[in-house]
Amino acid sequence: MFRHVVLFTWAEGATDEQRAAVATELGKLPEIITEIRSYAVGADAGVNPGNHEFAVVADFDSLDDYLIYRDHPAHQAVIAEHIKPILASRAAVQYAF
Amino acid sequence: MFRHVVLFTWAEGATDEQRAAVATELGKLPEIITEIRSYAVGADAGVNPGNHEFAVVADFDSLDDYLIYRDHPAHQAVIAEHIKPILASRAAVQYAF
Repeated sequence: MFRHVVLFTWAEGATDEQRAAVATELGKLPEIITEIRSYAVGADAGVNPGNHEFAVVADFDSLDDYLIYRDHPAHQAVIAEHIKPILASRAAVQYAF
Repeated sequence: MFRHVVLFTWAEGATDEQRAAVATELGKLPEIITEIRSYAVGADAGVNPGNHEFAVVADFDSLDDYLIYRDHPAHQAVIAEHIKPILASRAAVQYAF
């Protein structure tokens, strides 16, 4: 499997509604992008200090399938309309496992 | 399920041997810490610029089981002996899914 992991922090002015919309809109992608094998997103549980605020973990059969997801217009639309407007910082890794 | 995600970057002087040891030593933990339900670690595939360098994704039945992992002496030993000596930065999220 090939896994994509990305963690976000949000800008200080990000509203609860904007944060929730990221989860809602990303959650629609597995129905649209059939290359996605597993998809789990969520807000940080608040257990540890200093954490990022939101996680996306997406699994694919191959690097090629991940690239289809990465560049898919539906994914790019969520990034442009919901993530970038409230993004403060981003950390990502893709890895085979 | 309760998921722990952490991404690392390594110090510039970190050797290939030191980086590999992190994966090897973390990979021993599922045999020791039986609360771990799923565990997948790996080095970044180099597909995208600006990424972090190493990922850990660990799944548990509950927050309480994650806390057992977090505080387990075997896990803390890997952090102290193999991760902290080469750590440059760290991004983490824990979330329910």
